[in-house]
Order: sequence, then C-alpha cells, then structure tokens
Amino acid sequence: MYISKSFIPILKNSPSEAKIKSHKLMLRVGMIKQSSAGIYSWLPLGFKVMKKIEKIVREEQDRIGAQEILMPTIQSSEIWKESGRYEDYGDEMLRIKDRQDREMLYGPTNEELVTDIFRSSIKSYKSLPQLLYHIQWKFRDEIRPRFGIMRCREFYMKDAYSFDVNDEEALFSYNKFFLSYLKTFKRLDLTAIPMAADTGPIGGSLSHEFIILAETGESKIFTDKRIFDLNSDGTRLEKKSLDDLRKKYEQFYSVTDEKFNKEEFEKKVSESNRLKTKGIEVGHIFYFGDKYSKSMGASVDLPGGKKDFVKMGSYGIGVSRLVGAIIEAKYDEKNEIMKWPISVAPYDVSIIAMINKNDTSSLDRANRIASELEKSDIQSIIDDTDENISSKIKKMNLIGAPFQIIIGKQAEADLIEFKELGKESQKINLTTIIKIIKEQKVIN
Amino acid sequence: MYISKSFIPILKNSPSEAKIKSHKLMLRVGMIKQSSAGIYSWLPLGFKVMKKIEKIVREEQDRIGAQEILMPTIQSSEIWKESGRYEDYGDEMLRIKDRQDREMLYGPTNEELVTDIFRSSIKSYKSLPQLLYHIQWKFRDEIRPRFGIMRCREFYMKDAYSFDVNDEEALFSYNKFFLSYLKTFKRLDLTAIPMAADTGPIGGSLSHEFIILAETGESKIFTDKRIFDLNSDGTRLEKKSLDDLRKKYEQFYSVTDEKFNKEEFEKKVSESNRLKTKGIEVGHIFYFGDKYSKSMGASVDLPGGKKDFVKMGSYGIGVSRLVGAIIEAKYDEKNEIMKWPISVAPYDVSIIAMINKNDTSSLDRANRIASELEKSDIQSIIDDTDENISSKIKKMNLIGAPFQIIIGKQAEADLIEFKELGKESQKINLTTIIKIIKEQKVIN
Repeated sequence: MYISKSFIPILKNSPSEAKIKSHKLMLRVGMIKQSSAGIYSWLPLGFKVMKKIEKIVREEQDRIGAQEILMPTIQSSEIWKESGRYEDYGDEMLRIKDRQDREMLYGPTNEELVTDIFRSSIKSYKSLPQLLYHIQWKFRDEIRPRFGIMRCREFYMKDAYSFDVNDEEALFSYNKFFLSYLKTFKRLDLTAIPMAADTGPIGGSLSHEFIILAETGESKIFTDKRIFDLNSDGTRLEKKSLDDLRKKYEQFYSVTDEKFNKEEFEKKVSESNRLKTKGIEVGHIFYFGDKYSKSMGASVDLPGGKKDFVKMGSYGIGVSRLVGAIIEAKYDEKNEIMKWPISVAPYDVSIIAMINKNDTSSLDRANRIASELEKSDIQSIIDDTDENISSKIKKMNLIGAPFQIIIGKQAEADLIEFKELGKESQKINLTTIIKIIKEQKVIN
Repeated sequence: MYISKSFIPILKNSPSEAKIKSHKLMLRVGMIKQSSAGIYSWLPLGFKVMKKIEKIVREEQDRIGAQEILMPTIQSSEIWKESGRYEDYGDEMLRIKDRQDREMLYGPTNEELVTDIFRSSIKSYKSLPQLLYHIQWKFRDEIRPRFGIMRCREFYMKDAYSFDVNDEEALFSYNKFFLSYLKTFKRLDLTAIPMAADTGPIGGSLSHEFIILAETGESKIFTDKRIFDLNSDGTRLEKKSLDDLRKKYEQFYSVTDEKFNKEEFEKKVSESNRLKTKGIEVGHIFYFGDKYSKSMGASVDLPGGKKDFVKMGSYGIGVSRLVGAIIEAKYDEKNEIMKWPISVAPYDVSIIAMINKNDTSSLDRANRIASELEKSDIQSIIDDTDENISSKIKKMNLIGAPFQIIIGKQAEADLIEFKELGKESQKINLTTIIKIIKEQKVIN
C-alpha cells in the first residue's frame, strides 16, 4: 500500500481539543474522525487495529468454548421492564420511539436480551453450560463524552454470558472467562490485573475488573506490586486448575477505589509493596446468579424433575476502548513514537524510501521488498511521497508499524537499513529481516 | 462440535408466522430469533453463515482497492440537513433525541457521513480515486416489517462510496464495483443479474440493481434469457476491459418493473428469449455525480489550480439479506433439504452417528473422523444425540452442511458412508472424502 493512495489523513500538529495522548494520536494520525459528540468514524488505520483486537478477543472466547451470536443494537423496552432495569438505568440509556410509538432503546448492555434468547431455547440442564458471546456496538448517552474513544457514546464491545445449573458450575464458567481475559490481554501485550470490583448496575455478588496501568486512567487503584509478576501459564480448563489461578491472584491485595479500605491495605501489604496509581478498565466480569433468570423466568429442568432458575454471569471487554488503552500504555509522547504490539499493528513494517523526481530506483526497490514481504504474509506500507526522509520517519513513527525499512541514497547491494522502533538500526539482508519479523509474529 | 452442546434450538415443525421459505427455515433451524418487530438476534448457525458471506464481500471489495472504514450507526441530523434529505427521507428514518435534546438518527445509509469524512480529509486530485466501504448495521423503520430478515428493520449492509475527479474516472470506479459484485455473487453460488434500475432516494443518473431469480422475490423483472449465460471471466481492472463487461451485459434487455417498457421489451427481445419473473435484490449501485459533494461542499484542487466538486457513486450489498436470499434460491422446501454453498456453509460436513446406550464405538469413530477433518481445515458437526438415524438425517438436511457422513451399525473397516446432499451416497475411505471436500472448497 502506498501512503499517497491510502486514506490516512495526517495532521501536522496535535489537535488542540484532545486532552489525553490516545485521543491526540488517534486524531493526529487519522485513525478516527468525530462525527458528533462522543461518536466516531473509524478510518482505515484505526479500523485495522480495532479489527485485529477483535480477532484476538474472538479467538480467546472460542478457545473456552463460547459460541458467537449477534444481538441487535435496538431493543424493545419490554424485556427491560421485566427485569426492572428500564427505569433504573437512567439517562445514559438512549431511549427511542419508533414510528408506531413503541418504546425502544439502543442497548447499553445485553443481560435482558440474552436471557430472553436463552429462555426460549434451552429447557434442560443437559444443554448446560452455555457460554454465548457477541461483539456489537453499544450506546451509553454519557452526559459529558470525552477522551476520544475512551469515554464516548457509541462503542464496540464484546459481551459474553454464561448459563449454568448451579453455583459451582457457574463459578467454573466465571473462571474460564477469568483465564480467557488474562490470555487476551497478554496477546495484546498488555499487563492487565484483575481487581475485586463493585458490581454496579449489572448487580451480583462477585466481580473483577481488569485494569492496565496508565497515568491517564480514570480508576484509582491500590495494589500489591507482586501481582504484576503473576501470569496464567500452565493453567488448564479444569475446575481445580482455574480455581488455583484465581487464588494465586487473589492472595495479593488489589482493588479499585470503590472497594478500597485503607486499614486493610496497610495490614495486608508491606510498605515496600504498596502501589497506589491509576489505571484503565479494559474488561469487567460479573457473577450475579439468578438476578435476571428469576425476574425473567429462565429456568431449566433439573435431573430429579424439578426446575430451577439458571445461574448467570456476564463478561465484557471494550474492544474499541482497547485501541485507546494500548496507545495510553505504549505511546512515547515526548519522542512522538508509537510502537504497536505486532499482534495488532496496522502494518508490520513501514518502508521509507528516499524518492527523487526522475529517479524511481528507490521506489522500485521498495516495491520489490514489499512484494517479498507480502509472500511471507508481512504487511507493509510504503511512503512514496517526495517529502524528505526525516519527516517521513516522523510520520511513520506515529503510524506505528513496529519495524521500519529505510531506503536511502546509497543503497548497498543486498543490505537494507532495518530498525525495530526504539532500537538501533542495522544493515541486514531481506531474508534476515523476514526471519526477525516472522519470529515476532509467532510469539504474539 | 457436538449438536447437544451447540446452541441450535431446532423446532419440530415449521413456525406458523413465517410466510416465505427463508423465514420458515431460519426460525425452524434456530438461525435467528425475533427480538421485536423486524429486529432479530443471530444465533450461532445464522451468525456463521452471515460471517462467511461478510468475508467474501470484504475480500472482493479489497480486491478492487477499496479501503475499509467503519462509520457509526447513530448520526447527527445536521449533515442530513446540509444535503437536504432530512425531511425528504420520511418515516422510515428512525429519528432520535439524545439527553441533550439533539436531533440524531439511526443511519439508513451513509452518503452524508462519508462525504463529511471525505471533505475534511482529502484536498487534492492527487489523492483520488478514493474507494471507501464499511459493513455496518443500518435501520429503516419499515411500516410493515415482514419475511424475516428479508424485509426487516435492523439489517447488516456493506456500503461503499467512490470519489473521483471527473465523470470518466467516476465511471471507471463504478465499473470496478460492477465487476466486484458479479464476482461476489458468483462466489456465493448465486446467479445475480445486473438490471437497469431507478435511483430512488439516493438520486443520480445511472444505477444497476443485482437481482437473483426467486419466486418469492419482491421485484418483478423483465429480461432477455441470454443474459444468464454471461459471466465476468477474463475481465481485468482496466477501463477498456470493464467497459466491455458493462456493454456485454447491457446488450440484453433486463429491467425491473420500475423501468419496464412493454414496447421496448417486445422490440428488443424475441419472444422465445423473453423472461418475465420475480427476483430478489441483493445489491444496488448508483452513480450520482456531485449530488452530495455540491450540497455539502466536498471539492478538490484540480491540476490547473481550480477546484471542483468530486464525483461520487455508492454501492450497496445486503449482507444479512443475502443469508435469506441464498435460502430462497437453494432450499428445496418440498423435500426439506437445504444445501448451503460450501463457501458459506455453517459446517462443511455433518457426521451422523448411530448412538446406542452402552456402546460408544460409533461416537468414538465420529470423533476420530472429526479430528482428522479438522486437520484439513474441514469443519464438522457431530450429532451425538440418541435419536434414530432417520430423524438425525432430517435434522442435518435442514442445518444444511453440504456433505454428510453416516456411521451406522455395520461400519466397515476403512469405508465410510459419504454423501453430498442431493446425490447418491457412496462408501469410500476418509482420504478420498477429504480430497473431495477440499476440491469443492478450492473452487468456491
């Protein structure tokens, strides 16, 4: 892809309306464009990143046996009246009247709708567990949308729902998502820490937020530093193994300010391990038992012949929000260098060629390299404009392909100037370059 | 995947509320569930098919150089007032007031929004052409939604937009989509014929609908039979070649009733070639020049220093509608056999095993076969229930994997009963089965 033909409208300077670095970068490099307050269009660069995040989220849902469905954005108010949340939800719910004057709404979440689907489909404990998820646009009519896509009104989210016959099985489902989330964020090259959290308008008794550290985060967090050394390696999709994983994390104090208790914090965490900082919520999981199944009558036949309400949990990941969260975590604003994790990078390599009028040799070379990379499934973007090399490098540092190839005047026969962002450049041949990039892609 | 664990709620009988066969089958086999009038949730089986269609649509857009973006579902009324369509659009537009009392709407189409994106991003003819597309949910508040997802309110659509410097280039873009549509529908195993059409509320001077034949279709069509023998083989992405393709199709009379002229029909088409029938619209392309760019001020600098409004076209494919259209075209309702084209089938093979209590040998064999198929990237679904073979076959005929493997009592050592839907079954070994299926997958 030539940058001159791509739809990447780059601004010379940081836009003044943006306050946090993800919002600044996304506007500056043409990842998004605001269409109205808190509502954005995703331009090709932003779209590519979001789609790659979506794919990873999807794969990790599939891996724990969740099945993908797709619920509509517009819902009827009726099911929300059944659950009792229609009035409770307040002004953040976008309420709509259709041409027949029926009360509709733009779904801010889907507990009611998925419970309605479940109750009309599943009748027996034999069909349990059921883990259903979808990835869909949602709308919350924020009174003061801000920070770009981090606190916007229309956002893209994965939400999953589990249905089980009893508490024990339901916690098994909950723990599957707990593991799935740790794996998802790891593949995005984020260190997301599960923290005990309040359940808020979803309700229920058990809940974890997954938080990444970021100075611009909206959540205050209080945690034992040692939790950052943990990982989910070796955990299997079995009750005991998942239970051990939860316990391993829960041995360390780690809460958001809603659950913060100073005394407890100081008692449980030695001074040298205390960390008070800010973070961004990128996922949230809830166990709420029969809160919705009871009010909406979602029950199954049990082995003995009795019936019982199914036990449910719900599990959210902000897919569009993650684009911003990764920028908050990775963007070196001072040096204006964004290095996307290769798993979600819009391009793997940027090819920066020094173009002279009347001399197409650098561009020809760039094209040959790009087509060789393509054969190894490595995506590149070529800067084919006649700007000078240093402004091209600056631009590519913002676009954020993790690798750069620079084709200057004195190109040597087989050696290519190759650089991983943030590291020294080296002169190596194309075969070695391909090997380095492919290795990185496999790891992530 | 075991059918007992999958979320495929199958009904014993055809639901009475459905009038056309796609609606009947989709409800019966649990592809969709209505959530309110004209609004549906997509359950796993329907979702799989829709996603496969979406992928093919996407690939054929990418192939002509279109770039993917994603515009939001909720739009501000302001841009629609600029174009003059806000009042014109009538009651089918779902109008919304947000909590600040701003006039919003759920996008029924995106000419305004994409023009707004274009005008703020592209300033010079040098960056043209630009072909942008997105695949997004849209809403049209039909007064009488019916026929399931064929005439519903919330629907999934690919819409693309082209921006060019003059009419000649704009027609080149138009013709690229013309080709792309023929290829897309061919990959879906549909014979879709381009027909001269009215432009309706989109406006403009040139338009083609792509129609597939179906008795339940809402469009009356009048056509020269010989048009069905044409194809786009050998067409290249060059002006002359694309022009020839258009001419090849346009030599034959082929219109919907809006454009029908009896005298012309009878003059141009000999009696033996006349075909009057019904069809389903699956795509629609428009050329409308500067209709939106003029009213919304989207201009570019020309080579000489002057400015001119860009010339635009728009190009829609109903992605969710195609699920129904394929059923209308392929479902043998009398014999209750749905054979999905392998390019979009929810599963490639259904494995129907005769299960006896206390004897798991058939199921074990099914599992082994499924895991061998998996290695060749062939997706299967195993019926692991204890129903009898004939009711299992009936069920699988509705689910519609194009191939079936039947594991009965007297399983022979290496030979497996294998059947392509609608053909005779044969006893062959697994290697041959894999070869047959893989060949089919490559063709499509």
